[in-house]
Parts: sequence; structure tokens; C-alpha cells
Amino acid sequence: MKEQEILSLLEQVKAGNASVAEAFAQLKDLSYAELGYAKIDYHRQLRNGYPEVIYCQGKAPEHVRGIVKSMLEHNIGIILATRVSPEVAAVIQSLAADAEYYPIPGICIIRRQEMKKQAGVVAVCTGGTADIKVAEEAALTCELYGNPVERVYDVGVAGLHRLLDKLDIIRRANVIIAVAGMEGALASVIGGLSDKPVIAVPTSIGYGANFGGVSALLSMLNSCASGISVVNIDNGFGAGYLASMINKMNVPE
Amino acid sequence: MKEQEILSLLEQVKAGNASVAEAFAQLKDLSYAELGYAKIDYHRQLRNGYPEVIYCQGKAPEHVRGIVKSMLEHNIGIILATRVSPEVAAVIQSLAADAEYYPIPGICIIRRQEMKKQAGVVAVCTGGTADIKVAEEAALTCELYGNPVERVYDVGVAGLHRLLDKLDIIRRANVIIAVAGMEGALASVIGGLSDKPVIAVPTSIGYGANFGGVSALLSMLNSCASGISVVNIDNGFGAGYLASMINKMNVPE
Amino acid sequence: MKEQEILSLLEQVKAGNASVAEAFAQLKDLSYAELGYAKIDYHRQLRNGYPEVIYCQGKAPEHVRGIVKSMLEHNIGIILATRVSPEVAAVIQSLAADAEYYPIPGICIIRRQEMKKQAGVVAVCTGGTADIKVAEEAALTCELYGNPVERVYDVGVAGLHRLLDKLDIIRRANVIIAVAGMEGALASVIGGLSDKPVIAVPTSIGYGANFGGVSALLSMLNSCASGISVVNIDNGFGAGYLASMINKMNVPE
Amino acid sequence: MKEQEILSLLEQVKAGNASVAEAFAQLKDLSYAELGYAKIDYHRQLRNGYPEVIYCQGKAPEHVRGIVKSMLEHNIGIILATRVSPEVAAVIQSLAADAEYYPIPGICIIRRQEMKKQAGVVAVCTGGTADIKVAEEAALTCELYGNPVERVYDVGVAGLHRLLDKLDIIRRANVIIAVAGMEGALASVIGGLSDKPVIAVPTSIGYGANFGGVSALLSMLNSCASGISVVNIDNGFGAGYLASMINKMNVPE
Amino acid sequence: MKEQEILSLLEQVKAGNASVAEAFAQLKDLSYAELGYAKIDYHRQLRNGYPEVIYCQGKAPEHVRGIVKSMLEHNIGIILATRVSPEVAAVIQSLAADAEYYPIPGICIIRRQEMKKQAGVVAVCTGGTADIKVAEEAALTCELYGNPVERVYDVGVAGLHRLLDKLDIIRRANVIIAVAGMEGALASVIGGLSDKPVIAVPTSIGYGANFGGVSALLSMLNSCASGISVVNIDNGFGAGYLASMINKMNVPE
Amino acid sequence: MKEQEILSLLEQVKAGNASVAEAFAQLKDLSYAELGYAKIDYHRQLRNGYPEVIYCQGKAPEHVRGIVKSMLEHNIGIILATRVSPEVAAVIQSLAADAEYYPIPGICIIRRQEMKKQAGVVAVCTGGTADIKVAEEAALTCELYGNPVERVYDVGVAGLHRLLDKLDIIRRANVIIAVAGMEGALASVIGGLSDKPVIAVPTSIGYGANFGGVSALLSMLNSCASGISVVNIDNGFGAGYLASMINKMNVPE
Amino acid sequence: MKEQEILSLLEQVKAGNASVAEAFAQLKDLSYAELGYAKIDYHRQLRNGYPEVIYCQGKAPEHVRGIVKSMLEHNIGIILATRVSPEVAAVIQSLAADAEYYPIPGICIIRRQEMKKQAGVVAVCTGGTADIKVAEEAALTCELYGNPVERVYDVGVAGLHRLLDKLDIIRRANVIIAVAGMEGALASVIGGLSDKPVIAVPTSIGYGANFGGVSALLSMLNSCASGISVVNIDNGFGAGYLASMINKMNVPE
Amino acid sequence: MKEQEILSLLEQVKAGNASVAEAFAQLKDLSYAELGYAKIDYHRQLRNGYPEVIYCQGKAPEHVRGIVKSMLEHNIGIILATRVSPEVAAVIQSLAADAEYYPIPGICIIRRQEMKKQAGVVAVCTGGTADIKVAEEAALTCELYGNPVERVYDVGVAGLHRLLDKLDIIRRANVIIAVAGMEGALASVIGGLSDKPVIAVPTSIGYGANFGGVSALLSMLNSCASGISVVNIDNGFGAGYLASMINKMNVPE
Repeated sequence: MKEQEILSLLEQVKAGNASVAEAFAQLKDLSYAELGYAKIDYHRQLRNGYPEVIYCQGKAPEHVRGIVKSMLEHNIGIILATRVSPEVAAVIQSLAADAEYYPIPGICIIRRQEMKKQAGVVAVCTGGTADIKVAEEAALTCELYGNPVERVYDVGVAGLHRLLDKLDIIRRANVIIAVAGMEGALASVIGGLSDKPVIAVPTSIGYGANFGGVSALLSMLNSCASGISVVNIDNGFGAGYLASMINKMNVPE
Repeated sequence: MKEQEILSLLEQVKAGNASVAEAFAQLKDLSYAELGYAKIDYHRQLRNGYPEVIYCQGKAPEHVRGIVKSMLEHNIGIILATRVSPEVAAVIQSLAADAEYYPIPGICIIRRQEMKKQAGVVAVCTGGTADIKVAEEAALTCELYGNPVERVYDVGVAGLHRLLDKLDIIRRANVIIAVAGMEGALASVIGGLSDKPVIAVPTSIGYGANFGGVSALLSMLNSCASGISVVNIDNGFGAGYLASMINKMNVPE
Repeated sequence: MKEQEILSLLEQVKAGNASVAEAFAQLKDLSYAELGYAKIDYHRQLRNGYPEVIYCQGKAPEHVRGIVKSMLEHNIGIILATRVSPEVAAVIQSLAADAEYYPIPGICIIRRQEMKKQAGVVAVCTGGTADIKVAEEAALTCELYGNPVERVYDVGVAGLHRLLDKLDIIRRANVIIAVAGMEGALASVIGGLSDKPVIAVPTSIGYGANFGGVSALLSMLNSCASGISVVNIDNGFGAGYLASMINKMNVPE
Repeated sequence: MKEQEILSLLEQVKAGNASVAEAFAQLKDLSYAELGYAKIDYHRQLRNGYPEVIYCQGKAPEHVRGIVKSMLEHNIGIILATRVSPEVAAVIQSLAADAEYYPIPGICIIRRQEMKKQAGVVAVCTGGTADIKVAEEAALTCELYGNPVERVYDVGVAGLHRLLDKLDIIRRANVIIAVAGMEGALASVIGGLSDKPVIAVPTSIGYGANFGGVSALLSMLNSCASGISVVNIDNGFGAGYLASMINKMNVPE
Repeated sequence: MKEQEILSLLEQVKAGNASVAEAFAQLKDLSYAELGYAKIDYHRQLRNGYPEVIYCQGKAPEHVRGIVKSMLEHNIGIILATRVSPEVAAVIQSLAADAEYYPIPGICIIRRQEMKKQAGVVAVCTGGTADIKVAEEAALTCELYGNPVERVYDVGVAGLHRLLDKLDIIRRANVIIAVAGMEGALASVIGGLSDKPVIAVPTSIGYGANFGGVSALLSMLNSCASGISVVNIDNGFGAGYLASMINKMNVPE
Repeated sequence: MKEQEILSLLEQVKAGNASVAEAFAQLKDLSYAELGYAKIDYHRQLRNGYPEVIYCQGKAPEHVRGIVKSMLEHNIGIILATRVSPEVAAVIQSLAADAEYYPIPGICIIRRQEMKKQAGVVAVCTGGTADIKVAEEAALTCELYGNPVERVYDVGVAGLHRLLDKLDIIRRANVIIAVAGMEGALASVIGGLSDKPVIAVPTSIGYGANFGGVSALLSMLNSCASGISVVNIDNGFGAGYLASMINKMNVPE
Repeated sequence: MKEQEILSLLEQVKAGNASVAEAFAQLKDLSYAELGYAKIDYHRQLRNGYPEVIYCQGKAPEHVRGIVKSMLEHNIGIILATRVSPEVAAVIQSLAADAEYYPIPGICIIRRQEMKKQAGVVAVCTGGTADIKVAEEAALTCELYGNPVERVYDVGVAGLHRLLDKLDIIRRANVIIAVAGMEGALASVIGGLSDKPVIAVPTSIGYGANFGGVSALLSMLNSCASGISVVNIDNGFGAGYLASMINKMNVPE
Repeated sequence: MKEQEILSLLEQVKAGNASVAEAFAQLKDLSYAELGYAKIDYHRQLRNGYPEVIYCQGKAPEHVRGIVKSMLEHNIGIILATRVSPEVAAVIQSLAADAEYYPIPGICIIRRQEMKKQAGVVAVCTGGTADIKVAEEAALTCELYGNPVERVYDVGVAGLHRLLDKLDIIRRANVIIAVAGMEGALASVIGGLSDKPVIAVPTSIGYGANFGGVSALLSMLNSCASGISVVNIDNGFGAGYLASMINKMNVPE
């Protein structure tokens, strides 16, 4: 339920065109819809400016189905599902034929409305090819929320000239997402070369003593460069969401 | 060396008012001053918009003295030293009588120039009273860089009404810094109540299985709320610096 | 063997209606039945007031079969099997057609007797939908042992209004079980809002730096709220059992 | 401010014996007193039934002084300060000459009112002599809140006969607190011998691979006995508080 | 090659019944047989009194085949293979039809010679039914090396009477192997009740915060009882081998 | 109270030379002496063959005083105190002038009776000079309990010839204690060269990634040699006690 | 593009035999080829003397295909792919029929040019048979880069005579690679016996408390022998590459 | 005892100028000198080409005195003591007035003989000023063993231009030692820019989630650049020793 709809409903009550009982029925799940196994937060769009996102990992397919169905019934304009397996993607597509599925990052999007376009660019960089899976989760999230994205992939610090070669793209960006596994040094190097916020995303890419992403995580937390903050291992969505929040600040409203 | 000084010097060379040799002597440590034990990055002010910061922990007092001395000779307008013990503070104050020392966060500031004032507010919140030490490092950094700060201290989630009571202050802020030790839940709760970026600072406050801040760090990294990113344990400066970066974006330039 | 049966047997011996040899045969495994691979503790019902529970994970199906068979022969009124795979459920149902199987929490119950109903209510809360698997293990255990249960699911702290909306249900409860993965902040928030014991159950739900539930575990152990204690990760049964113990205390006997 | 005082104040307003302005002045910090560095939660006594507790570790002595002073001005009947160093104890005693200081557990108590006495007994058991420091924090908390306490110290499982010898005391208790370091097996053994809730407190006592209490913590979390829950390492206060909560449930109100 | 064979060969050389060249050929791999991918240590039987053992986990089946084949050609009297999958067992049985396979502990034995019988008994105890897999690896190793074994299974400390009931068996033993997962308290309790060496074997049985056996391992290392030492997690063979070594010491030779 | 004394007392009662009341008074603390803060286990000498040992770390000096005083009053022939600081040593020596104090391992011994001498030798080996502190705790314990000890110090594997040079001493021993920090490889190398039980003691000696002894502990637990078991980090006493137990087995009784 | 080709191209431009536009086209991806998902570093051969290596783990098969295709088009003389599954090997072989696949170490090599042969030998040693998988990754890398290799497999310290027997081979080598899992003591023992650099490779071989190679890693990092350095767990390629670098230094150029 | 002395002694025996008994007396501690608490390895100079080094941390001052005294008596030409406190330095200087003490790295050197000068240079780089303590341990070790050293300090990746500015120095070196704490990215960046072996030394410099150097250690182990190996945290000596070994290889002998 969007802000305009609520205001309009209240006007109708005031004008006597809607009974209190009718208004109550429409408003009662303003805050959230109770599905028993889930409480879908329709108030969030109002409160935070973004629609609810469905994190599918660990949820039973029938629960995902129920949540998507409820969202569609509430006319949610943009639905973003993350960590979507092909099986769950099929469930979602059976409800909405227009749902797009991106298998590499495991993302499913139903887009029946557009977010406002932002002027500033978000640069999404990766250390290697294998980090692209996480980077695409971030990049698609940014794009969905109206942010132009520059992808700068495979610029790990072992071949510094590849990174320096793309430096102007990175410096033109308003927010930078640095996605890297292994030793995660990419974030520090970019942080030292730029004066914009860097959101570091450690990935679980690597082997041996990378401990599922801990090596990159610690590296990023201990960065000697300033202006860097870190999200959870492999949390591409979180980085994309935060980048959108920050990027939105850069234009007068 | 500030941007204007460089341009002016080049104009003088062009006009024949300065010899190439003279200009070279002044420009040669534009990039950094080599002290042997340290390379002070005077280029950073140009590159990143902020002066060099001195992280004093682990540095010998004579090294700190040498670095401050060099900065003063280069007419750096604002010098920020962090993790300053009373002994090191005395060293700094012997070089600059106007150096202010804040013993709780261990910060020393020489302020001979003002940063541009920002319009947006940064809210600095803590879970408890013992987290103030870290929070003040963040708050003073923000203020030094021109950001108005609202302090909202001791609003840990165990007494939720204290936090809810301050909600309007938090919601009016442009960026929020959430400082908490123990279980670090403050970041998640604030993240769920606000639509602005939340920079979470885990602190080492606690005992037993907090493992020097790991409990709060993991809690913040795994937050179920969106829009949260994390800096290193007790890294108040890092949070303040990043908040300044983001806050600066919110005004048309 | 229940208390009444033992007393009755002893009366029979006293009255000469049962020989010492007969009584001995019945009493000899009063303490436990020796199956070689397992020693079933029939004394526990007397000692602790609850029947033996079968933790099936890691046990060979034929061992589970043998244990259930022995229990049925001893006329155990309530048998609770946890961590039951569909294969093991089939084994149990082949022995007792009335065995109910709950696939989500992996629980199997043979209920031929009712536990005394308790007056107080146990509230079982979860942070998210994916935590329900563990929560149902707790809730079914509570119900089996005679406790009315209120399920309050998907009330994670990122959408605090969902939790506050259910606050009266939570406050009416006598004991609260808080089940959460990720950052596990639910326990602290509930602990701060209620004056009843909170049993916190960390779950392994999450990804990245949640380390199989460690993030929630540490968060709960370090809670800044009082009145909270913690059981093992994913240990829904343990929480349900303890809640039953505490809830039973609340009525005069 | 206690419940009765609030009701009485409201009656006065109703009867015209107190002006609205006067009542407001008294009620305005009902919820908490704002000290800037701390927000003292006077509402908690109403909400949770217990007065605020001051956790002194990490707090500056002047902050503790300010908090105690505010509490005394609000006529708080019982003030409990934990983790009190001798220096901080002197500060408290300078404000309240009747403050009792217990140096082994580091506890300071100002008792100007008595809590209602409970009928049930709390048994506080330790594995060894060195655990007494933590156990006394638990025991004194229980006693302060009106619970009779039985101390059963140095009954570690390496000399099982010492524990079995005290079994009747343990079994008569309503709630059991098991305090142990090293391998922490005490909780499991007591849990297997009793049908009452066991609150396990791991201590940091030990050496080598005990890792500051982690060995006991993991041992207690993984207990094969039922009815056990765990609080943070060395958290005697938390165990005592929770035991009080549970013990209060055992009597008809 | 056994001690007697070497002496006999040397006597033959001395007597002129064997040429030096012939003797050399037989003696040259006395120390070990070089297979390229493995060096089989035939000297160990002489040096340590026991035949080589094949730890199969991580070895390619063809490597196991080659090693067993070489051993059979060298007339090794007892071959013990551990961590044997059914596939590898089939490989071994194709070389030696008399190879016995025990699927639960994953052990395969070719026994063409008997070890000397020991007088003392080794007691192998487990905390639960699921620990039997590891315990049988220990028990079969002991028996293979000539030690009588008493199995005392499922005597975990949560039901202490089951353990006390078997106390006389445990006390009659010369060496005790205590196998337990979860909190591993069994070792401490047995250690406190016996005056014989206790070899503690932590198992990976459990869930949640048992961390693959770390909880039991730490518990056993930190035991407050004396006379306990620990082998690696799930290392039943190591415990059985060491118990054999110790048990052999108890009889005059 | 020693076995002979008990038998003699019972004979007196039987013969009418002691009243039941008198005998009871003497027997009543047969099991342990209750000091409130400690329960001294005088039964252990009977049960395990060894006197009680006082682990002083973490105990208040007055508690140690009380325990030693009680032991002296019960005529305990051998008292061993470990982890004794110079201050605590002075307390003990004020009670027993004949108490010997060994400052390097921090051991204090009151020896008024001799243990039976064993025939077999215990070899105590260290990797380096800094491990001697722990090794002496083991060696003195062995000697106190009647075992001849061979000290083989500073034979770390980096200079293998030093170890091989002492091989005959090591091989003549009945039990071997291998004490090493850093990488702890000593235990594996000795284990491969000997056919006697090796008790490995990891020490906290080292720096960097030794993590207080964890590197040596893991190394020893994962030893590829057989016949090795491990005690806690720095637990010299535990190793000495266990070696005594095993060494005692080697002679016909 | 090799050094000679660049020089020759520049000569052609100078001589007027190539236009600037033609030269530019050839030079423009001198630095790297941009594939979008990867940036292949053709400059590295010039910069570091070795061709690019393809680490296949975590890369999509189509990405590997694209990278190999680009390399073949650039006439790279030696292509080394590591962590190659059979599926990916088939992809590579479909592009280059002469690609050799080594399934045990998972390596694929396309060799259309030979590296210069080195005089010095690299010895590759393993503790056990199961470490061969990693050792072969190192050995094949060394051989590919022109180094003669001596394989000394299965010489773990538990059977020290096997290692001592091969000592002359090890001592003749110029660089030694020590590959070991479990307790990883091999590196220390070899380090103590040799005066050449030892590159230690911990492997994940082992079980229980080896924690995926951490036990060997810590052991090697804490080695008491000098001249040892460590690469990541299972990183055979890294060790081989570094050994090649060092070995190349040993001959006058 | 140096090689030449041994040969000369043997010649004397052969020529009848020294008796066998005399020669034996001189040769008997060729291998090592037995001090009881230490075995000084005089054979190492022969075997490895370098004199014994004294690692002083954890050794009693009288043990250090004894070791130095023995070395001086054996005419060892170069003695290097590391981790030397001022107190221990005074002990050494009382034995050898020419001992030089370097307090920052805590090194003490007695230099009565020069090592052969090497042609190649070792570059020692640090990320920051606080890493110099460890770097000097490495640099002084290199110089002592005859290697020219270039110090390149404070070139952390946050100010990449400082590092790039020194690139020619780094590239001219034969071996590079990269010393860094915090996120340790320096090693990766240098590794990518150079084709010489890089020895990475993680330092414990940093705070919060650096965990005493673990962050830098993991970062360096997981480096995406090739040609890097790692020594223990803060192990400057180990890096210097290994660099010397490698650097010595670069000249024809």
C-alpha cells in the first residue's frame, strides 16, 4: 500500500465515501500481512522507501510461493528475490510469467514499476572472475533501485596495472562496491585511490586458509585505508542496497 | 600543500616570477615527505579532500613528534591524532600549544583552519555508557570535518523505550553511527527503524564470550536489517570519517 | 514403569499375591533396560517426571527400532523422537501405526497417554520464517508435555513494529522461547520488554559470517538484557523441555 | 518511583490535591533519568519487578558516582553494583555509608528496603574453590532478591562422592545454579540427577586449552542432560537474576 | 619380516647355506618396501612390536590394493585397515578372501597369525549409542592385538546410575577407553572413579556448538580429574593402539 | 587416613576396644573434610593410591593455608602443591618448615613419607630450554611418586642429531613424556622411534601464530605416529601423574 | 606477446615498415585482454617471466573456455590450468587436442614451447601417500617451468628411517618442497637437516582436530627450524612456482 | 669449531702430532655442547653454514648467560641474540663488551668475524611506521649474514603512490621481505609488481579484528599473487635468515 493510497482512503472516510469499517479492513494489514509463517512488511515501502525483499535461502518453496502471492495481491511494484535456486525460480515464474531469473547470482525480479533514476554511478569491482556471482547480486540490486552501474571485473591487486587502467571509471563513481575473496586487498587499494565511500564485500572464493571468506573479511575490516566499511561475506544484496541508499543522497530532493 | 598554492606556484613559474629550480624544491615533496621511518602523504588532502591523520598506537613518541613537526612545517590546517596516550599528548602539545587533548577517546586536535560546515546531521548512538569512549572518537572526527553531531548515548535494546524515545532525533539524521559492544543488537534495531545508512561500530566492551568485540562484530555483520555496514572493532575514527564522506554527498556542490 | 505400578507390585508381594521371584523379574530393569547398544532409562520418568526421549541423529535405524520396541513393551505412555528422517519415521510407524510424524521439525510422537495440562502459556517466537523448523521442535515438545503454546513467528528486530504488535501475547506468557539465527537480537529485545524467563535458541540460519549459528549464539550469550539463558544451536527440544520444567513450577501442586 | 507512588499521585491529581504541572514534573522521568552519559531506567522496576543494576566494569568512576547519586535521589530501595573494584567501592561508600562491599565477587549493595521472601530455595554449586568468586555473585544476587540460598561448593565431578553426598540438598532446591570452569561437567551431572531447572555458569577458571572459559561454555551448551541452559562466562549476576525470576514463579500469587 | 626370520637368515649366511647376494636381496627391504607412492615400514614390527596399519581415508583404492598386496607378499601375519569404505573393502577382499569387514567402524582385518593374549582387560565405554562407531574401532584394535575387551556402552553422565551400575567392570579393567561426544564429561567422571589410566576419545557426535567434536575435545583436555590423556577426535584406532601398549606392560615378560 | 588405620579401627570396634561413637567420629570425614570453601578428598588416597594435590592457581592464599593445615592435621604423608607463587610458597612454609619450594616450575612439596620406588624409568624430554619450566613440573611429580626420571632437555627436531644422540636413553625408558611448544613435532618423532607410551605435553612457549600453545596442541593431537596421547597445554603435573600410573603397571604385584 | 616480438614491431615502425595504426592494434592489448568477465594479463610474461595460469576452481566452464581460447589466439606457449575437474578438462581438450590432463592433481597443460632447463634440482617430499595429490601439483609446476624434480614421497616423521634413507637426495636439491598434512612435522625435520630453502605446504589431509589443514599450517608457521616459509593449505602450485623462481637464481645469467 | 680446524686436527692425528685421545677430547662436542638446560649446536655452522642463534624470549637470564659464555669459549665468530630485553642485553654485554644492542628490534650482536658479502640486494619493506620493529629484526639479520639491504618503510597500500615511487628499488632487489600488519595487502601488491621471491612477514600491529596478526597472516597466505611465502607473525629473524639463504644462491660458487 503506497502513501498516496492511504491518503486517498483517509480522504474518502472524511468525506463519508468510505465507512470506518471498510477503511479499517483495508488498513489493518497496512503494517504487515500475517501469513502465519511470515509477516510481510508492507509498511517498509513507506518507512524505508524500498519494497520488501525475499531472501529465499532456507525457506520452503511453498512459503516463498505464499509470500510472492501475497505481494502480488498487494500490487507491490517491484519484487526482488535473492538466493533463488532454479526450483524456486520456477515456482515464482508460475505465479508471474514476467519474472526474470538470473541464474549466476540466483536472483529473480518482478518489475512492474520503475524506481526513480539516480544521477550518480555505482562502480562494482571484483578481484577475480569467480567473484562475479556475488558482484552481480550487488549490481542487479543497484540497477533495480534506479542506479546506473559500471562493472569493473577481474582487477585484483596481483595485476595492479589492470586496476590502474580503470581508475578513471572508479573515480567517476559516486559509491564503489569492492567485491573480493582470497586476501581481499582490493578494497584497501581502491580506498586509497578514491575519495568516495567504498563498500567492501568479502567473498567465500578461495581455498585453504581462506576459511569460507574469513581471510577477506578480516582483511577488509583491518584496512589501512579510510572510508571503507564492510558487509557480510557474499552479501552482494546488502552492498547494493546500501550503495543505493548512499547514492540517493547525492541529489537535491 | 593545498590546491590553490600549487596553482599559484605554477602561475609564478609561467610568469617568470619563480625559477624552475625554486618551484621544483617546493613541489618535490608534494606527494609525500620522506622522514625515513614515515612517508607523510601531503597529496592526500588534494586527492581525498582530508588532511593526514596520525594513528599513534604502536608508534614511538619521537616518531609522532617528527610527523607532527613535519605537518606543522607544511602548514597543514587540521591535524588529527588518534589513540593518543597522555605521554604522547604532552609531546604534541610541546610542539603546538593550541593542541586540544580529549583524554576519554584519546584524541588530540590541532585546528588552525575550519572545514566547510555540512547541513546534514550525523547521529552517534551507543548501547551503553562504556561505549562512549569509542563513540566520542567518531563524534569528534565528524565535528572536526564539519558535520553537526547529535549524541544519543545509552540507548541499548534492553530498555527499548529509551531508544524509541529518541527516535525522532535518529530519524532526522542523515547518517547514523551505531556504537555497541556485548550483543551489538543496537545496529539492527536502528537499521530497521531508519532509511538512512547505518555505520555499525562493534566495541570490545563486555566480558566472557564477547571475545574482545567479536560477538558484537558478528552480530552486526549478520544483521537482518538492510542498509548497515560495519567497521573494525573500536574503530570510531573510521566510522566518523566514512560518515563525513557520506554526509558531504547530501548537498549540491 | 510408573510409580503407581511399583507401589502396587510391592503391595502384591506384601500380600503374598506375587512371589519375590516374580516381583524381581519385573523390577530388575526398573532402572534401565540393557539393549547392548543402548541403556534405556525407565527410571527417568520416576526421577525427572518425563519419559525418555530418542535423539535419532547418528543412530542406526535398527538401533532406533530396538529402542522404540523396548519402550512400547514397557508401556511407555508418551514417546518423543527428535531429528527423525523420513526413513526412520517409517521404521517407527511400522512399529506403531499411531505414530505422528512432523516432517519440518523432524519429530515423531507416539502419544498413548496425556500429560497433565498446565495453566501458564509458553510463547515461542522466531526472528524469521526459516527459523520455524527449530521453533516447531520447541513448540511441539511443549505441547506434548502439557503446555499451551502461542506461536509468534517472523517478528525479527529489523521490523520492530511486527514484534511490538504481538507484545501483549508475549507478555501474557509465563515462559518465552526466542528462536533466531543471523544476529540473534530477538532475545535481547524480548528480554528487555518482558519480566519472564527467556530461553534463547540460536539457529544455524544465515550465511557468511554466521558460522553455523555462532553469531546468534554469541549475541544471545552477551545479551545486555537480564533473565535470558541460552541452549545449544538449533536445540529446539532442549528449549521446549526446559520451558516445560519452568512452566510446571507456576501452579500450586 | 514505585507503583504505589504513581497511583497515589494520580489520585491526588484526580482529587485536585496536586496540579497537573506538579504531577507532570514528578512523572516526567518515570521512564528514565537522562544523565547524558547514561539513561537510568526507573521504569524497569515497574516493568520487570526489579531495580536497575549497575554493571561497573568499563564505566568511569565519576559516571558510577553520578548514577548512584541519581538512584539515591529517586529513593531506589535496593541498589546492586557488580564488578566493583575497591576504588569504585570507595566512591559508592562515600555516597552511602550503609553500602556493603563484598570484595571476592566485587559486589556492592545498598539495601534500604527488603524484597519479598521466596519460599523455594536456590542451590548454588561450584566445581572448585576458585569458582567461588563467580558463585558468590550469583548467591548474593539471589539473596538480595529474597531467595534463600544453599551453597554447595567444591563438588567437582572428579570426586563424585562429594557431589552425591550433597544430593539431597541439591534435590530439595527449586532452581540450581551450577558454576564450573575447566571441563564444566558439573552441569551435566547435576542435570541428570535433578528434575529442576539448572542454570549453568561457565567460569574462566582453568589454564591451557580452557581458552578463558570456552571449554566449560561449550561443554555446558552440549550437555547430554536436559533442563540445562547457559549464561555468559563468569556471569554470576545473570544466573542469580534468572534464578530469582524462576523461583518467584513457584508460589501462588 | 619377523625377528626370527632375520636371525635364521643370518645363521644360514654364516653356515654358508645362503650366499651374501641372496641374503642381501631378502634383507634389502627389511627397513621398508618402496612402492613409489608409499614406503611400507616392515621394520616397524621389529621396532615397535606391531604390524603396519593402513589408514585408508584419502588414499586411492589402487594405492590401498598395492599396499595390501605388498604386505601379503611379505607374509605379514596381521593386517589392519581402518576407515575402510565398502568399495575399498571389496578391493581388499579380492586380494584376501579371509579379510573380515566390520562396516560400522569401517575396519578390515586379515588375521593369519595371533598376537599374544594379554591378561589385563581393556574397558571401552561410550557416552551414547552414536559413539559406538568410534568405540568399535578402538575395541577391535585392542582385541586384534591380544587384549580382552569389556564393552560398556551408553553410560553417559546424564543417567549416572547406568554408569555407577557398571562401576565394578570399569574398576576391574587395567586400562579404560572413554569415548564420548557432546560435552564429553564421561572421561572426567570415570577418571574420578578409577585409579587406572583413562584414554579419552572425543567424538564428532553432536550438533550445534559441538563444532565437529571440539566441545568434547576441550572438555577432555581440561578434565579436573587426573590420569586422563586425550587422542584426536574420532581416533578410535589410536586409543586402542595406546591401550594395547599400556596393557602389555602389566605382565612380567 | 590410610587403609591400615581403617582396618585397625574396625578391629578395635569388633574387639570392644573402641566404642561405635568413637569410631564414627574418626570415620566421619573419611570421605572428605568439609572446609566450606573446599572439600578435601581424603578418600582419594584409598581410592586412587595417591594423596590429594593442591592446584594453587586462582585460589586465595588463605584458602591454600586452610587446605594445607587440614592435610597436615590428617597426617597426609606427601603433599604436592602446584602453580605456587613465591607468596603462596611462604604461606605453606610458615605451616611446614620442611616444605621444599622449586621456583622454576612453581612447585611446593612436603614429603614426610616415601612412595614405593618403581623399577621402570620415565624419560622427560623437551624441545627447547624454555619448555623446562613445564618439564620440571612433570619430572618432580614423577619423582615424588617414586619413579626414576631421566631428563633429556633441548632435543627439538630442528637439530635432529641431538635427539638421535639420546635415543638409547629414550628407548630404555618405560614411559616417555614429550614436552614441546612451537610446532610440537618432538612427540611425533619420538613416537616413531619408540614402542613405549608417549605422553605429549604442549607448552605455550612460542610467539605469533602459536596462539598460547594451540599450534603444539594440534600438532600433537594429529600426530601420524601411534602410541601418543596428549594432556592440556602446560599441564606438566597431569603428564607426570599419568606416567606414574602407567609406570606402576610394569611390575608384578 | 613476447619481448622479442615487441622490439621487432617497434623496429618495423621505426623503419616505416609498419604504420602507427597497425602497431597500435597489436600493442593495445599488450597489457591484458579484456573478456568482460576476465582480464588476461599478457603483460605478466614480460613482467614476471612466466605465462598466465588459470585457476579453474569457482570459474564457470564457459569462462575457462573463453580464457583458454584467448590465450591460444595470443600464441601463449605454455598454458597451465589448475584445479581442473574432468568436465573442465574436456572443455580445454576440445580447444587443444594436445592438452594433457593429470587427474590426481587436477592439472591440465598445453605445452607448445619449452621453458629453459634449470641446473638445480627441486626435491618434492610428502609425509604420506594421501598428500601426493598436492605434491604432484607442485612437482608438475616445477617441471613445466624447466626444473628437474626429485619425488620423495611417504617419508613422514613417524618412520624417521625412511626419511633419513633419502637424505642425500634431499640434500643435493637446491630447493625443497615439504608437503604434509596431519601434524606437518616433516617441514621442521627437513629444515633442520638441510641448508637450502624449504617451502612448506600444509595439506588438508587428516581428520578430527586437523581442521582442514590448520594443524599442519600452524605447525609449519611455528617451526623451530630456520629457512622455512609457508604457502596456503593445499597450494601445490604456489609452492612449485616459488621454487622455480628461487631455483632460477642459482645459475649465472 | 670450523671446517678448517677439524681438517687440521685430523691431519695432526694422521701425522702423529696429536694423540687419538687429544683429538677425541676436542671433537667430542663437535656436534653440540651439553649444558644440561641447553644443547648448543656447534655442528650447525658446518651443516647449515650459519652460527647458532639465541632466541632469548622465555629463557632465564642465567641460561642465556651460560649459552653465550659457551659460544664465546668455542670462538664462535658471530653470535646473534633475538628478542633481547634490556636486562638480558646487560647480561650479554657483561660477557662481551663489544656486543651491540639494538633496542627497537631487541637484537644483540657479537661480531668478531665477517660473513662473506653477497652481491644481490635484499629489499625490506613495511606497510607502516609501527612495523619497523619487526622489519629491523629482518634487516639486521640480513646485514649480519653479508647481504646489502635496502629499507623501504611506510609504503602501505592506502597511499599507493608512495609504493610505486620506490618501485625501481624494489625491482632491483634479489629477494623482497614485505612486513605488514593490519590487512597485510602489501605482500600481494609487491608480489604482483615483481618477479623475485617475496617473503611475507605478518605483524601483530593493528587493533580490533586483527587478532594479534591473524588478519595479516591470512591475507598473506591467501595472496592472489604468486611467488609469495609466509613466515610466522612478527618473525623478522626467520624472514631475514631465509632471504640470506636465497640471496646466497644467486652467485656462482
